[in-house]
Amino acid sequence: MIRPRVSFFHATPSRSLGTLALLEELGADYELHLLDLAAGTQRQPAYLAINPMGKVPAILHQGALVAEQPAVFIYLADLYSEAGLAPAVDDPLRGPYLRWLVFYGSCFEPALLDRSMQREPAPAARSPYGSWDDVLNALTAQLAHGPWLLDERFTAADVLWGIALDWTVKFGMVPETPAIRAYIDRVTVRPAIRRAVEKDAALRAAKQG
Amino acid sequence: MIRPRVSFFHATPSRSLGTLALLEELGADYELHLLDLAAGTQRQPAYLAINPMGKVPAILHQGALVAEQPAVFIYLADLYSEAGLAPAVDDPLRGPYLRWLVFYGSCFEPALLDRSMQREPAPAARSPYGSWDDVLNALTAQLAHGPWLLDERFTAADVLWGIALDWTVKFGMVPETPAIRAYIDRVTVRPAIRRAVEKDAALRAAKQG
Ligand SMILES: N[C@@H](CCC(=O)N[C@@H](CS)C(=O)NCC(=O)O)C(=O)O
Ligand SMILES: N[C@@H](CCC(=O)N[C@@H](CS)C(=O)NCC(=O)O)C(=O)O
Repeated sequence: MIRPRVSFFHATPSRSLGTLALLEELGADYELHLLDLAAGTQRQPAYLAINPMGKVPAILHQGALVAEQPAVFIYLADLYSEAGLAPAVDDPLRGPYLRWLVFYGSCFEPALLDRSMQREPAPAARSPYGSWDDVLNALTAQLAHGPWLLDERFTAADVLWGIALDWTVKFGMVPETPAIRAYIDRVTVRPAIRRAVEKDAALRAAKQG
Repeated sequence: MIRPRVSFFHATPSRSLGTLALLEELGADYELHLLDLAAGTQRQPAYLAINPMGKVPAILHQGALVAEQPAVFIYLADLYSEAGLAPAVDDPLRGPYLRWLVFYGSCFEPALLDRSMQREPAPAARSPYGSWDDVLNALTAQLAHGPWLLDERFTAADVLWGIALDWTVKFGMVPETPAIRAYIDRVTVRPAIRRAVEKDAALRAAKQG
């Protein structure tokens, strides 16, 4: 299969570290474009023409924009299926895999924002994520099963969640239970993830220096 | 391929009408389980054992739960790929397809909730969806291209968005511009969608009678 290179729009520090980590895990062929969120380049016309939401991460591939973290993850892990980070369509783990990736964007992120803004929660029946406790309980129950979100199978969902839990625990937004700590450590000790974290730090250092 | 039947957890009226419509569009083999949201069956132990979030839609397939609308849509449309509602992994439309499905759950739903609760919006840079205007502008710009979200190609994303815009316009949450009205009409006139709407109404009538 001819696989054109992935153009990856990144900023540091930011959520797009997760996508950088995934690209490293996949051994993907990518070209990194660095935005400076503090300088506001993500909301200048040049970037809005690429991603009208002015957000990172985003990728361009086969002439098309892919944005929204769960979408970027599903797309890339299927594109580089030989890395084995995406259960195939007929695999019984495919459904849970998609569920946990989408849950991140549809439930965890909105719950996190409401919590960090100390907003009055919406009634659980009206809120797409129910309550903060619903989200955290569902996640911790899932993590109790095995080393990875889908038990024995390491997937792209672990890259997303491992990196996200790392920063949300650091910021005191998610409680550092032993199970969550151990999960983060299992993810972040992986060579590809460490490589991504180092590349990210180098980009930050280059920007400052 | 042996494809076990899909168990579909539904309530009416509710968001899960979209999934019912998708199952009809796909010609899927499914078994419908009706929950009564007003009676609170979705938050009783029997259903929480299936979906710990206590939400519909949800499906059980191959022994696993798939919840979260975009995940359910991606899963089902790939499972019934012969219906042609999911661009394949190597199709240049695959990325935009995933982006718009995930955008629904990660951006549109949270924006809708904040708006309907008349909450003070979070600063755009901190909000996963930016602002309400960012969301609506991105969507309407996309709808301006062609009859469907991905131009000439009707996909499962149109089922999700067509049904969602239908009820959000009815509730006065989304403005009824001519383009949005025409898009909703194009989706809801489809035979499979009409069939789903009729089935849904019949379930509601049976419940009340
Ligand atoms: N994040 C979920 C949200 C689904 C949702 O909010 N469903 C509503 C139906 S409209 C529900 O089940 N509400 C019942 C309750 O929360 O008690 C998704 O996208 O599927
Ligand atoms: N819904 C988006 C949210 C991404 C997001 O919020 N990105 C932040 C980086 S941490 C951003 O680009 N902020 C810059 C801005 O909004 O100006 C996703 O899941 O990918």
